[in-house]
Amino acid sequence: MKINNKTNILIVGLGIVGGSYARGFTKKGFKVHAIDTNPETIEFALKNNIIAEGTTEIDAELIGKADIVISGLYPHTFKEWIKENQKYFKSGALITDVTGVKGCIVYDVQNMLREDCEYIAAHPMAGCERLGVQNSNEKIFYDANYIVVPTEKNTEEAIDTCRHIGEILQFARISEISPEEHDEMIGFVSQLTHCIAMSLMTCDHTENLEDYTGDSFRDLTRIARIDETLWSELFLLNKDALLHQMKLFTMEISKLERMLMEADKEGIKDMMRRSTARRKLFDKERMD
Amino acid sequence: MKINNKTNILIVGLGIVGGSYARGFTKKGFKVHAIDTNPETIEFALKNNIIAEGTTEIDAELIGKADIVISGLYPHTFKEWIKENQKYFKSGALITDVTGVKGCIVYDVQNMLREDCEYIAAHPMAGCERLGVQNSNEKIFYDANYIVVPTEKNTEEAIDTCRHIGEILQFARISEISPEEHDEMIGFVSQLTHCIAMSLMTCDHTENLEDYTGDSFRDLTRIARIDETLWSELFLLNKDALLHQMKLFTMEISKLERMLMEADKEGIKDMMRRSTARRKLFDKERMD
Repeated sequence: MKINNKTNILIVGLGIVGGSYARGFTKKGFKVHAIDTNPETIEFALKNNIIAEGTTEIDAELIGKADIVISGLYPHTFKEWIKENQKYFKSGALITDVTGVKGCIVYDVQNMLREDCEYIAAHPMAGCERLGVQNSNEKIFYDANYIVVPTEKNTEEAIDTCRHIGEILQFARISEISPEEHDEMIGFVSQLTHCIAMSLMTCDHTENLEDYTGDSFRDLTRIARIDETLWSELFLLNKDALLHQMKLFTMEISKLERMLMEADKEGIKDMMRRSTARRKLFDKERMD
Repeated sequence: MKINNKTNILIVGLGIVGGSYARGFTKKGFKVHAIDTNPETIEFALKNNIIAEGTTEIDAELIGKADIVISGLYPHTFKEWIKENQKYFKSGALITDVTGVKGCIVYDVQNMLREDCEYIAAHPMAGCERLGVQNSNEKIFYDANYIVVPTEKNTEEAIDTCRHIGEILQFARISEISPEEHDEMIGFVSQLTHCIAMSLMTCDHTENLEDYTGDSFRDLTRIARIDETLWSELFLLNKDALLHQMKLFTMEISKLERMLMEADKEGIKDMMRRSTARRKLFDKERMD
């Protein structure tokens, strides 16, 4: 499918990411339709010209005219929604999503989907600790990675269209990996980091600590403000990969603990040098 | 001592923090002198009007005319420098510093110092992962906490003067705690965070990981670029407090690990709620 200005886009679930998708497409001249169960969300999106049309109901006609259906729903809800509503899809419709775990979603959805439609998974690695369409902003993508997560079932055409979505939304970088690679990587760079931030935030109960904190502590705990419904689901759906990464991390911090106990200055310095060298690879300046 | 435009300020060790002090004082019209062993540092500082006078030598006259001597040296070097050079101090001189650990410094320096001078400890909680006077910037203080760390030996007058330094440099917040409270707090908000960032940075060796990372990982590892000479010294000087904080943290992350293994969704959600609630206290918007 070639995306052009006649392409009908339907976003299901207009939260922070779905809302930002809507803003991005609308800005580029697309007609964006949306379904969200929350009336305030739809009202806000219409009033602010984030979408052209929207409803809180299952609207067979609205779903039926969509060339591209993008799910901004939570993983479990996404699967259920497809099951219930795929009967309304236009033949040839392309389905994609924004969910942060893939292995437990992609195969199930591909297996249950009608033969005349195609589901291609994607993960926009952007977000915000504030929720809802009210906080959505298409600019969160300009600096972010967009990952296409195809399986053997996907056609080259669908992969190309999915990449094109990332281009239209102006992601900084577009890449392609398998569901398994995706989940391992996300267990590390996203889920483990949230586990660490939460643990750091809750492990000390000193009062008025906020009066003495510098930027380091604020940086490390920014993501400790966490949506418990979404993230408890994401953690559990990716449990094995996440537990593996937590193990690697806790073994590493225990090593440092031992070096401290033994006052092994050279060992500590060596770890600091390796840390500094590896962190340099992650500098944005280098990438842009 | 009342600080006025005739007050002579000497900064010893013109690194990122010492250099930023120099810029801040110079901007406010003070005559700032500096001693640093690195000729390039002094040359840069003179050329860029960060200081009025500077030398790489021990200059008895320069030291002798200082009303306030501020050490920007590493902890051990600071003690040695005082021992060697206090003979040159003007009678009545006030000595202060910027070191990030206090218990192992403050009492020793106060005990060895000449009776006619006074040392009052301070910790500006600001810094930068880039080093040297070349990267110094007085603006790093505008958003930061300045902590005065007095002992029973300190006079009210010295405490007031030390606070005044924080005001002149435009710190966002000035507070006062004991060396013991300081070290416990810093073990948590600063040293533990660096331990975590380092461990996160070095625990996984996946190549090209930088292509897939979002802001969370970058935020959590910003401080993984770490000056090994300074920080290995800081860690070991505050070993007991730091090990205690590491224990608290690793116990907390193990709790989360267990909940994940047991798929205890309610327990995970509860921890996420507590994390979110506590993080809100640390929002800068709230404080400013």
